[in-house]
Amino acid sequence: MKSFVFHNPTKIIFGKETEKKVGSEVKKYADKILLHYGGGSIKKYGIYKRVMDSLHREKIRVIELPGVKPNPVLGMVNQGIDICRKEGIKFILSVGGGSAIDSGKAIALGVPYKGDVWDILRGEKKPAGALPTGAVLTIPAAGSESSDVTVITNEKELIKKGYHHSLIRPRFAVLNPEFTFTLPKFQTAAGAADIIAHVLERYITHTKNVDLTDRLCESTMKTVIKNAPVVIKDPGHYPARAEIMWASTLAHNGILGTGREEDWGTHKIGHELSALYDITHGASLAIAFPAWMKYVYRKNIPLFAQFASRVFNLGTDYFNLEKTALEGIESLIGFFRSIGLPTRLKEAGIPDDRFEEMADKLVATGPKGSFYKLHAEDVVNILKIAR
Amino acid sequence: MKSFVFHNPTKIIFGKETEKKVGSEVKKYADKILLHYGGGSIKKYGIYKRVMDSLHREKIRVIELPGVKPNPVLGMVNQGIDICRKEGIKFILSVGGGSAIDSGKAIALGVPYKGDVWDILRGEKKPAGALPTGAVLTIPAAGSESSDVTVITNEKELIKKGYHHSLIRPRFAVLNPEFTFTLPKFQTAAGAADIIAHVLERYITHTKNVDLTDRLCESTMKTVIKNAPVVIKDPGHYPARAEIMWASTLAHNGILGTGREEDWGTHKIGHELSALYDITHGASLAIAFPAWMKYVYRKNIPLFAQFASRVFNLGTDYFNLEKTALEGIESLIGFFRSIGLPTRLKEAGIPDDRFEEMADKLVATGPKGSFYKLHAEDVVNILKIAR
Repeated sequence: MKSFVFHNPTKIIFGKETEKKVGSEVKKYADKILLHYGGGSIKKYGIYKRVMDSLHREKIRVIELPGVKPNPVLGMVNQGIDICRKEGIKFILSVGGGSAIDSGKAIALGVPYKGDVWDILRGEKKPAGALPTGAVLTIPAAGSESSDVTVITNEKELIKKGYHHSLIRPRFAVLNPEFTFTLPKFQTAAGAADIIAHVLERYITHTKNVDLTDRLCESTMKTVIKNAPVVIKDPGHYPARAEIMWASTLAHNGILGTGREEDWGTHKIGHELSALYDITHGASLAIAFPAWMKYVYRKNIPLFAQFASRVFNLGTDYFNLEKTALEGIESLIGFFRSIGLPTRLKEAGIPDDRFEEMADKLVATGPKGSFYKLHAEDVVNILKIAR
Repeated sequence: MKSFVFHNPTKIIFGKETEKKVGSEVKKYADKILLHYGGGSIKKYGIYKRVMDSLHREKIRVIELPGVKPNPVLGMVNQGIDICRKEGIKFILSVGGGSAIDSGKAIALGVPYKGDVWDILRGEKKPAGALPTGAVLTIPAAGSESSDVTVITNEKELIKKGYHHSLIRPRFAVLNPEFTFTLPKFQTAAGAADIIAHVLERYITHTKNVDLTDRLCESTMKTVIKNAPVVIKDPGHYPARAEIMWASTLAHNGILGTGREEDWGTHKIGHELSALYDITHGASLAIAFPAWMKYVYRKNIPLFAQFASRVFNLGTDYFNLEKTALEGIESLIGFFRSIGLPTRLKEAGIPDDRFEEMADKLVATGPKGSFYKLHAEDVVNILKIAR
């Protein structure tokens, strides 16, 4: 086990009708806020009204910035920064999934910073602070509601970047599983893939003696694998929605990676696919992860065999652990397919003519990943496996 | 899954030489502190010096209050309160196990409170705030380093009470597994029992649809069961010490109980045993828990069978789950015995002539527990099983 610091002060408020507590939580920070969200779905399904009711009960003034799209873009972040400065706003409440929350975090970083917020997001400049933020989660996937990460796409340069800082961890997150009943099947499935990917980026490691976090990772993946098919079939199944929602937060709140060397190479491949083809993040990972695993598993066959045995309950071939390891990867592919996700680039309509371009962008500042250090040719090879 | 709020802002600093960071962490809160600890062991093994070096590097003035004993007492808490008031101290740093940390938390509650701190601790009065505290952990067991609990014994009335409040969660906890190398075998074993008990108080529940936390609980118990025998045999085994140390914190930081109805009845039986006989807390639980389990398992045989199968890898008798359930309890007893703990009252030198007295004290303010509501006669019956 490696040394680590774990510090996640986000307050999680979980369960039915918890949106009623949004107003009193926000009130601790500000009387006037930016409400940041996506499109019509939160209005259509009554979530917007329930959140607004709670804010109004506390007499909180609300300036709205709707229109966040999946793979949130820098343009909207800058728009939010302008509004906050002009209106003297001191708190940002995002309602939605990872996109709305990530966008809110980036706005929060930008408001007190005098230069271009992209310089912070691409790691060139240090932040000058951040407004406090909160989240009402409607899509269990990104884990952004308690993570220290924001992923923003510079739509002009077609660059998607993940940025980490403890400043941007939301102060609170309201998780009402009922808010996920109306999620389309595809988004539910893509969320499940994102959760599993967040765990796998931590699970697949060379760090030894991590019994506890091995098992915590496996627990989280097993929970998603059990419950995702339930909600795909029965979208209003509260217990299964609740399991997935809590798994999505725990998968990315930092605990599962404590003491482990993590590897975020696969996420970066997913980001390149989304930047060029605007593919849903979770779907990009359902394609990229199995391909990455096939490319790298030989570096730690026992760990991949453990994954197969413990996560998918596969019988272990003790005379041929590699066989078991490969069966585990195939089982993961089978799981993704079973919930309706693409596991090949062609199934997502992505052609094979820009692999080098994506690879070059991915390694522009040097090779990426730690379990397996990805150079440009590795990225191309992985994308070829994923064709 | 039940609704819940989870909020644990304690910063965990884990690994070798992490005590070097104590000074800079403390400095965020105060320049003059109370250093609270037990007896000679932290001096004998160099821990005291390493912590003091870090404090001195930051020019922090240290007033010392040594002498905390296992099952910390109100008398010392009041002594600490007096010192803090007289010296104008604004931060308490505990170095030790749950006793030193619990005692520090109670002092922190008492300083700003004008009346008798015992009135807060026994739940009669509300706190008026609390000084911030920090912990350098040397005994992985109580989980006090990131919990919101303090357990204090009123030595005059022979009453041991647990008190919960978010105010008393430590701001940071330094966890260096090397500091546990010198723990005597018995304390190591008692710590392991305490950790498992913290998980079981959450695991044994009637709450349905708690797949994720079921598995997180099982993961934590399996980790302790695997690693405790390793460190009993080889006290300087860093990887196993690290697993146990992190397990001890996670077992009691609140996550494992999220969404579950918990049952702390067994801990209360342990507290009664400690109040009368001063038995080590973990040892009291190694005795009380199996007895409680034998008394209550019929209320949820499938859960006890799951425990047997998943935690102890026992083959399930699908035609007789009760048999499997009982085998699980026997395996737990076997585990406690294997690491040198008593599992019977008589093995701990505790006679059977004051069962009614303990039972009456335990239920003085009403029956206790939720999985099984303990009345006085139940407590007596459980103690009889434990004879």
